[in-house]
Amino acid sequence: MRLIASLLIFLGMTFTALAQTDAPEPDISSKTLDNGLRVVVIPDRRAPVVTHMIWYKVGGADDPVGKSGIAHFFEHMMFKETSNHKKGEFSGAVAEIGGQENAFTSSDYTAYYQKVAPSALPTMMRFEADRMRNLVLTDEQILPEREVILEERSSRVDTSPAAILSEFVSAAQYVNHPYGRPVIGWENEIRKLDREALTAFYDKWYQPWNAIVVVAGDVEPDAVFEMAANTYGKIVASTEPSERNWTSDPEPVVAKTLSYSDPRVTTPSWQRRFHAPSYMTAEQGEAEALDLLASILGGSVTSRIHKNIILENKLAVSAGAYYRGTSRADGFIGIYGSPRGDTELETLVAALDREVERLVSDGVSQEELDRARQAFIRSIIYSQDSQVALARIFGSVLSIGGTVEDFTQWPERLRSVTVEDVNEVARKYLKENRSVTSYLLPEQG
Amino acid sequence: MRLIASLLIFLGMTFTALAQTDAPEPDISSKTLDNGLRVVVIPDRRAPVVTHMIWYKVGGADDPVGKSGIAHFFEHMMFKETSNHKKGEFSGAVAEIGGQENAFTSSDYTAYYQKVAPSALPTMMRFEADRMRNLVLTDEQILPEREVILEERSSRVDTSPAAILSEFVSAAQYVNHPYGRPVIGWENEIRKLDREALTAFYDKWYQPWNAIVVVAGDVEPDAVFEMAANTYGKIVASTEPSERNWTSDPEPVVAKTLSYSDPRVTTPSWQRRFHAPSYMTAEQGEAEALDLLASILGGSVTSRIHKNIILENKLAVSAGAYYRGTSRADGFIGIYGSPRGDTELETLVAALDREVERLVSDGVSQEELDRARQAFIRSIIYSQDSQVALARIFGSVLSIGGTVEDFTQWPERLRSVTVEDVNEVARKYLKENRSVTSYLLPEQG
Repeated sequence: MRLIASLLIFLGMTFTALAQTDAPEPDISSKTLDNGLRVVVIPDRRAPVVTHMIWYKVGGADDPVGKSGIAHFFEHMMFKETSNHKKGEFSGAVAEIGGQENAFTSSDYTAYYQKVAPSALPTMMRFEADRMRNLVLTDEQILPEREVILEERSSRVDTSPAAILSEFVSAAQYVNHPYGRPVIGWENEIRKLDREALTAFYDKWYQPWNAIVVVAGDVEPDAVFEMAANTYGKIVASTEPSERNWTSDPEPVVAKTLSYSDPRVTTPSWQRRFHAPSYMTAEQGEAEALDLLASILGGSVTSRIHKNIILENKLAVSAGAYYRGTSRADGFIGIYGSPRGDTELETLVAALDREVERLVSDGVSQEELDRARQAFIRSIIYSQDSQVALARIFGSVLSIGGTVEDFTQWPERLRSVTVEDVNEVARKYLKENRSVTSYLLPEQG
Repeated sequence: MRLIASLLIFLGMTFTALAQTDAPEPDISSKTLDNGLRVVVIPDRRAPVVTHMIWYKVGGADDPVGKSGIAHFFEHMMFKETSNHKKGEFSGAVAEIGGQENAFTSSDYTAYYQKVAPSALPTMMRFEADRMRNLVLTDEQILPEREVILEERSSRVDTSPAAILSEFVSAAQYVNHPYGRPVIGWENEIRKLDREALTAFYDKWYQPWNAIVVVAGDVEPDAVFEMAANTYGKIVASTEPSERNWTSDPEPVVAKTLSYSDPRVTTPSWQRRFHAPSYMTAEQGEAEALDLLASILGGSVTSRIHKNIILENKLAVSAGAYYRGTSRADGFIGIYGSPRGDTELETLVAALDREVERLVSDGVSQEELDRARQAFIRSIIYSQDSQVALARIFGSVLSIGGTVEDFTQWPERLRSVTVEDVNEVARKYLKENRSVTSYLLPEQG
């Protein structure tokens, strides 16, 4: 599990030229409380600010079948009433001191955080510990929020042709794996989520043994551990730890193509995913090679796709490649493009196909590999510039079963990737029968 | 639920020219025992033979998630040891009197039957009632059978490129519905089926309230009801009735194409499915119109595809259309073809596409409708010629929630379908965004 570069891409970061030095390793402390809750402290003393995150090892992929959207539902419910606090009290306490807060749900995890002054940390922990077990899950609380979520789905998916298509692309890639279901949930299933389902899910997963608290900032680890013991440490788990039981996919052998036409589409676009392992499922070294492969093919302005297709032949307004390797189960290499001006989509697709074929048949050069590798290693330094991003990297790595060393030893593993390693994963994974291709098209005339 | 014509096609029957009279309605009797088991008697006195079938309202679509193949597993286990009979005793009793037996599993149901002399009926019922609740589900019984099933999967699926592709086609059509999973089970999931899973499934579904016994043959209804009361009637259900809870699909909006290349493929072939309701899910009259539509398009030697593509233009060695409407949940209209001689696959596909487009834009003629309708109505007479097929029709109709009248009143409903009804379902369902297209190709050179 060494997934930082992908994660940075995921976080929307770019690779700028930074000083070519190694990243200083953050001096991380970790402690597990008696009730199983893990506390991780990442010192970051550049400013008098602290990021307090709680990660639950549960996400959309843990939604019971027929109840998609339930993990994400909690991203809403956790801001509502608990038996000790009225709706909005926690958020009010954050806002009052000029703090920031947010929450996010992926297929793999659900996380909540606040960025506040260090003095507010004990208060944040009290509130956060409270909502872990004391949510008021009544119809009065749940039913209006369900409408809000349906509205959210409507505005995020139904208004976006790309989002509509994307849900079906995931379903096509993951035929028997829960990654095939949207994290926000299928509309017809959200409608049926009720008190009984939410209560069962909350009791199953929102427990101290399933949580990781990450604190990054201007704090002393021992003081944080003490605060955590006085707040989170008081929580008594009401259930035994549950296993995350996910179904798995058959080996991909069938090439799939999806096509969605919508009058709201103005410029057509094309994507192809090649099913590939993630940092968690890959054999040793493969994920690093996949990260570098995607980068060389289309991950930066010096990549082949950018140089040949965007700059030289001017076929695309956007085009590139990326590796989705930061998931607990298998991911993919994605390639995409949208034609420029009068270029036919098929011309662009043929050009992108040629780049993939050339990469598979001729391989990459040592110079390309070195350049891509250097960019990744630099990105590690950059990642530490944002406290929230830093906390997020550790939280996500740990919550999908990785270790602190997966982060700290990542540059080392990256350095050992050879040209042949990259060429081998290209041959192994960039195969048509592992692919899901999708066309997003204007409504046909 | 009026699905006979589709079912007959499903059963591999052909429509031959029969006397143009209405079918005599079979005089069916039905009785529900106190424990919830339903007994249906269909008199058929042409020969001294009786068909005894038991239908369980459980099939592959009821397999728990991650445990695909479990419903089908029982098709094997039911022939093994019970607490009262050794493995093979039941089959031996059937063979001894020159009887026939078999079993089958679909997504919707599991059924077992024997065709024997009427005098053997009480014995059949005793054996059948015994194995409903008295299977010996030990590792000793289960584990060797699991190997047999894996071998069966291997020989039925892995050796057949068309079967491999077909599993992925279903998965692509039914993105969130259990019809997307193969009835025999995904290989990795069959491997994990164990005593605990089988016992839970058996106790949940193999109960008198979930069974329908269909007896067709030279028997008196009252005598059959008495035999049933003395055998099946003695079974005490060990659980309360369970609901069949299936997840459902989002509205299909994305056209999908799958492509599978395999060196074992000699002649390429092509299929397209248009997602459509079944007799159980369609609005009044739509399923009848879909059946007639498929027949006109490509369901017989007088159909458009047969006349234009096979006979006149000689583009295909095989080509046609069919309606899969006999399922408890949504089905589809399927169109298929395999090119003849030097014909390019794309030429054939274009010709098939043109037939669909022409049907949607210009509609069908009264003459085409009348001819297709007449063939269906005749097929009902024909269906009663086979006792097993007759019993099978009623068993399948009842086990997916239909009624006896769905069979007996079917000709009447068929007669009321108009040209406009057919044209309307063509326009409504033969849409690209409802389709899953699949190419089965020889390995590319």
